Amino acid sequence: MFGKDTYTGRRKQLMETVGSGVLLFLGNDEQGLNYADNTFRYRQDSSFLYFFGISGAGLAAIVDADEGKTILFGDELTIDDIVWMGPQPTLRQRGEAVGITDVRPLGSIADYLRQARSKGRAIHFLPPYRAEHRLKLMDWLGLMPDAQTGSIPMIKAVVEQRNHKTAEEIAEIERACDVTADMHITAIKTIRPGMYEYEVVAEMLHVANKANCQESFATIASVNGQTLHNHYHGNIIKPGDLFLIDAGAELPSGYCGDMSSTVPADKTFTTRQKEVYLVQNAMHMAAVNALRPGIAYMDVYDISAKALVEGFKALGIMKGDADEAVKAGAHALFYPHGLGHMMGLDVHDMENLGEKWVGYAGGEKSTQFGRKSQRLAIPLEPGFVFTVEPGIYFIPELIDIWKSEKKCGEFINYDVVDTYRNFGGIRNEEDWLITDGGARRLGKKIPLTPDEVEALR
Amino acid sequence: MFGKDTYTGRRKQLMETVGSGVLLFLGNDEQGLNYADNTFRYRQDSSFLYFFGISGAGLAAIVDADEGKTILFGDELTIDDIVWMGPQPTLRQRGEAVGITDVRPLGSIADYLRQARSKGRAIHFLPPYRAEHRLKLMDWLGLMPDAQTGSIPMIKAVVEQRNHKTAEEIAEIERACDVTADMHITAIKTIRPGMYEYEVVAEMLHVANKANCQESFATIASVNGQTLHNHYHGNIIKPGDLFLIDAGAELPSGYCGDMSSTVPADKTFTTRQKEVYLVQNAMHMAAVNALRPGIAYMDVYDISAKALVEGFKALGIMKGDADEAVKAGAHALFYPHGLGHMMGLDVHDMENLGEKWVGYAGGEKSTQFGRKSQRLAIPLEPGFVFTVEPGIYFIPELIDIWKSEKKCGEFINYDVVDTYRNFGGIRNEEDWLITDGGARRLGKKIPLTPDEVEALR
Repeated sequence: MFGKDTYTGRRKQLMETVGSGVLLFLGNDEQGLNYADNTFRYRQDSSFLYFFGISGAGLAAIVDADEGKTILFGDELTIDDIVWMGPQPTLRQRGEAVGITDVRPLGSIADYLRQARSKGRAIHFLPPYRAEHRLKLMDWLGLMPDAQTGSIPMIKAVVEQRNHKTAEEIAEIERACDVTADMHITAIKTIRPGMYEYEVVAEMLHVANKANCQESFATIASVNGQTLHNHYHGNIIKPGDLFLIDAGAELPSGYCGDMSSTVPADKTFTTRQKEVYLVQNAMHMAAVNALRPGIAYMDVYDISAKALVEGFKALGIMKGDADEAVKAGAHALFYPHGLGHMMGLDVHDMENLGEKWVGYAGGEKSTQFGRKSQRLAIPLEPGFVFTVEPGIYFIPELIDIWKSEKKCGEFINYDVVDTYRNFGGIRNEEDWLITDGGARRLGKKIPLTPDEVEALR
Repeated sequence: MFGKDTYTGRRKQLMETVGSGVLLFLGNDEQGLNYADNTFRYRQDSSFLYFFGISGAGLAAIVDADEGKTILFGDELTIDDIVWMGPQPTLRQRGEAVGITDVRPLGSIADYLRQARSKGRAIHFLPPYRAEHRLKLMDWLGLMPDAQTGSIPMIKAVVEQRNHKTAEEIAEIERACDVTADMHITAIKTIRPGMYEYEVVAEMLHVANKANCQESFATIASVNGQTLHNHYHGNIIKPGDLFLIDAGAELPSGYCGDMSSTVPADKTFTTRQKEVYLVQNAMHMAAVNALRPGIAYMDVYDISAKALVEGFKALGIMKGDADEAVKAGAHALFYPHGLGHMMGLDVHDMENLGEKWVGYAGGEKSTQFGRKSQRLAIPLEPGFVFTVEPGIYFIPELIDIWKSEKKCGEFINYDVVDTYRNFGGIRNEEDWLITDGGARRLGKKIPLTPDEVEALR
């Protein structure tokens, strides 16, 4: 948690940007796994953390832009709570630590909102992403789920603030990145044929937990790296496999890291693995070298895609003009996801506020396969923190479909592709900050090249 | 997952017990931490696992007792799903593996339920414990949250079946208990003054994760053992502290273990720590020695409470007649929770179905402090699996209240109690099965006595 001035300053700016109305923030509650009291780890809503700095269930807050005040809603602990949960600071004390003196019972919020609505004042809220949010918005505002779309002026104002990380935020993110790097370095040293995937995950979590961190998202650690959202960890690692890891640490403050690495099951890469790996490295370096204030991240995506096509032309997998191939989306057979995403209090920062606002400034997204998965398109600005994570995959099911449709046949040598059918996937990922003068990698370096990986094996 | 016959047999028995109506089972969905797609670990509902054996989001099932059939509702994966999530068995195949051939799209369930209601047929469902359940019951049955109370005939039938563990279930639970024991044994060996509490937790999770297990609930690992529901792990362990651990493993199948242990920060206990520890041991052994089919678990609770009073009389902390003291609830100042709870697919088995049905067979619960926290009161039967976990705590806030009220003054020497004010808490916990002839501890033994603990230090 930062100092009081950080939070009062953030709320003042928000109030000024939105200008009028009641800004309602829903804190997150506990969620039951298999019964109400057996809860998942608690995670406060990130915008709530950003503006109010208080982590804990049973809270909501209002920034009243009409009346220029902030109110924290929540209930003080009872003696029963203290017996079962131990002595804790009062909610009033916790409010004061973040510059809020107006603390009221949670039960009074519906009435506050009702009165505001009865005066014709606008109620702004952010898009709900948990079922509990939907029940509260029904209860407090009388809005059925379909009508709970979220306020665009509030979304835009929150995005504008959270997009630009301050020095104290960058220091936190960099701490999360250091732990994230340690998770990867440990995994890279650990992986051996004969291990189960979950044993590698266990070593990575151990590193995070020893540093008082959680996973910032469910770790991907798989011999099937070509499966992009693969959270199954039950396979045994075999000689010849490529092992793909995508994982990050989250600090107690909520700030996140997110990195990827790809490791051979054996001590060294095969020649074929290394050839494709170097193409991924070329994509990565082309992207990183392009980072500077003002460049649109969609242009950086195109640069990384072009580097893929050029590398794959050299390997005989692709053919034709590289720019035309990227325009046609031919690269997306091998690179079906985006180059990266904002990162901060959420590992995909502000994903719940919508990519349209976070990554596209309200503009429309492409519908082209591959390009439509680019989460961040706008020109980069100092203070932006985001990932750089180009990837190369051979997805048998996707290859079969494209081949049967002869899709982008002028750019793809399907006969050669077939020889890579069981190759797997490669991704490396780093976290970057746009500075006034250019860009800076955040956190400890993890191996990027085949030589760097092999040096840790 | 067990064989097909297990699941068809369970559903047949359920259908016969309830006799008529439509039994609706809600599968659990993914839940977002800080945005919809950043999900907590997935956990299927335990009754869904018990009757249908399928873990995965987006499912529901109906056991139609009127028509004698079972229907699984859910959607097959699309090619997009396969590209992102990898090839997987179809829902039809997963249904067949548990004896279900009638698989329909999830979108058709509301219509099925509407038709059944239009014919005046009863719709049974279990009490919702997640906000997502409430939204589904609104959507599918038109019931607002206040009206979603759950069906008592269905609750009673499910409890009756799940209360009695079969041999294949006991084998699974015992595997979970073995991992649980390893978590404790590792922690007992690890704890040293100067460590953070979270570093101990990290070692315990590492043991669970290496065995492909999760925590069955949020680990308690604290120098403030007197705080019963303490999930804060930020304290540094100091010489002289008592460290209390309550933690368990959950297998991929969902079956759980749950044990507690208490360890000195130093290599050995102080004399005073050992004296109180031996009283806890006496409570534990008195309870364990009483276990047999037919004895009410509330009577075993009384036996453990009486052992506390007798031990504390010898230490000068309590006085008077032990039976009278227990009747008056005097022991609850030091032992404010119950002796144990059912354990199985939930660590507090079926807690979402209500203690009234799981632990009291529909009977009323006591309102007396301490006794009201006993979760299991009914006579024990072969196949019951439950915890034995008496505890002793000195809770300063509670002592202050009782002392100011002179509560149970005829049984408590408050002047002596004051000298233990900062003692902390002690709990040891094992998992037990009622057999035909008596009872059996499940899983590897963890240290119970001071000597056994010190032998591992």
